Amino acid sequence: MKKFINEPENLEAEVTRGLVLSQPGILRQLPDSNVIVRQKLKTDRVSVVFGCGSGHEPAPSGFVGYGMLDAGIPGKIFSSPTPDMILKGIKEVQNQAGVLCLIANYTGDVLNFRMAMDLAQMENIPVESVIIADDVATLKNKSVGRRGLAGVVLVMKIAGAEAELGSDLYRVKEIAEWAASGLRTIGVASRPCVIPADGDPSFELGEQEMEIGMGLHGEPGVLRCNMMGARETVQQMLEMILLDCNYEKSEVVVLINGLGGTPPMELYAVNECVHQYLQEQDIVIHDTMIGNYMTSMEMGGFSISLMRLDPHLKALYDAAAVTPIIRR
Amino acid sequence: MKKFINEPENLEAEVTRGLVLSQPGILRQLPDSNVIVRQKLKTDRVSVVFGCGSGHEPAPSGFVGYGMLDAGIPGKIFSSPTPDMILKGIKEVQNQAGVLCLIANYTGDVLNFRMAMDLAQMENIPVESVIIADDVATLKNKSVGRRGLAGVVLVMKIAGAEAELGSDLYRVKEIAEWAASGLRTIGVASRPCVIPADGDPSFELGEQEMEIGMGLHGEPGVLRCNMMGARETVQQMLEMILLDCNYEKSEVVVLINGLGGTPPMELYAVNECVHQYLQEQDIVIHDTMIGNYMTSMEMGGFSISLMRLDPHLKALYDAAAVTPIIRR
Repeated sequence: MKKFINEPENLEAEVTRGLVLSQPGILRQLPDSNVIVRQKLKTDRVSVVFGCGSGHEPAPSGFVGYGMLDAGIPGKIFSSPTPDMILKGIKEVQNQAGVLCLIANYTGDVLNFRMAMDLAQMENIPVESVIIADDVATLKNKSVGRRGLAGVVLVMKIAGAEAELGSDLYRVKEIAEWAASGLRTIGVASRPCVIPADGDPSFELGEQEMEIGMGLHGEPGVLRCNMMGARETVQQMLEMILLDCNYEKSEVVVLINGLGGTPPMELYAVNECVHQYLQEQDIVIHDTMIGNYMTSMEMGGFSISLMRLDPHLKALYDAAAVTPIIRR
Repeated sequence: MKKFINEPENLEAEVTRGLVLSQPGILRQLPDSNVIVRQKLKTDRVSVVFGCGSGHEPAPSGFVGYGMLDAGIPGKIFSSPTPDMILKGIKEVQNQAGVLCLIANYTGDVLNFRMAMDLAQMENIPVESVIIADDVATLKNKSVGRRGLAGVVLVMKIAGAEAELGSDLYRVKEIAEWAASGLRTIGVASRPCVIPADGDPSFELGEQEMEIGMGLHGEPGVLRCNMMGARETVQQMLEMILLDCNYEKSEVVVLINGLGGTPPMELYAVNECVHQYLQEQDIVIHDTMIGNYMTSMEMGGFSISLMRLDPHLKALYDAAAVTPIIRR
């Protein structure tokens, strides 16, 4: 297995410590856990937390800091964080203003967050949640709904900025839901990652194949085909987004998220195609984020997210943030 | 070839436009070229420029902006920028305060920069250069000297910050040379990248092999061996750095640079090992940068750089910067 790691069974802990060591002024690790919180917790404002499986670094904890998350709660590789760890994070950051949990829409994540929130409420902690389901490749009518993909990062930015304004819990929840309602993502994968515990690839793809719509854990997509050029790939992907949500004449943020094994060169080439296509559709781009924000270890591929802005969302998106990954 | 690109012959231009489109407030592309300069050029301070082959994105132009570079000049894939493009960059950013060229030590880069600087001097543009040769894996006594690796990014930060202070050309050059004198880097590779023009891998490595000391273009390293864990790999690499330069009791910046195909998870795991090892050696870490700063397209692997700080270098390192990649 060609990974620069140590024993797979300690990987999540090592990754957590490695991240905290890189930004000790911003991050603090809770004892006996991989939960990371802000060094300087707010005491009078709504707290925002997010958790997801390990293997998606820098998510969740690379976005902990001023203007974004108060706590990042990782699970084991590609597994939801456990209810006790989520509760640990909630209890550490809670104050009388309450806690908003952002949840990427996966069955395990939703169940575990709900359980932790029930336990928090029994301790009289005001807690609310917003479920993010931005993946247009998942059918709407499936009972579990759509998956949460890299667009979650944009909702963290919005919710964190609204919380910094001193808004109450219901307002922060409302604005996060509003941002999520105008958020769509589609992914494409070209190479699997290797699961550290067993050394197996996360999925199989032919030598020349790619798959549009594949999920962050190798969940099936909607179109498996031979590798296409960046322009054609982007066109296929954006067509799926625009069929699902009308962004015409809207102002949007574009997030081009590398899955871990796809380098900046390709993401920049993709970005030119995204800009060209959106301009032809009369969609105005306020800002573009390009990089590894929510990866699948070393998986090849990327996702494109669009988030609609209104003047208030734009101000929140532009607001200051000081996290390991996003700084404004 | 599993790359999300269009025609290989237009790749450098597409990548340049994709980067500029992502940060139109910071970057401006010069007509008929892939040279990128700051949107708001300084008119009374020393300008700092850097150029290198394409394929190393976000270098060179991801570091253009306040507090770092005034111009980024890419060549073709893995090829030095041509003298006419370097001259174009120099002429665009020059003012009476002069221009400092940072050059990674490769024969082609040094020759082409020297030619461009000669031409600039004939036009009465004050121009100086600093050659950065941070790779401890290259033998000191080879006639061409050591290669320049990702440590160049740290010298950009130092030189750019000194230039923002309003120092004269000789002072900016002196401080960049001083920073470079305490800078060492060592790389390791686990997977080759594919050269777009011919679809060939940049080098061959066995299924289970890695190579310590390999260069950014697949130049031979010093130790080819079976994949080791992160701890052992880091120990081997740091031993080579510390044999070459004594950092004991020094304060340093650590840069862990992904080569493009190695995800944040592994870089964080590596970082914990780096911190543990340096602490044992009585070396104080002021700050740690982790990410894709100077890649080799999708090559697997990473490099570790250490740069010694004194109080002035520390202030320059910490000073504000507003570029697509580095923000303070």
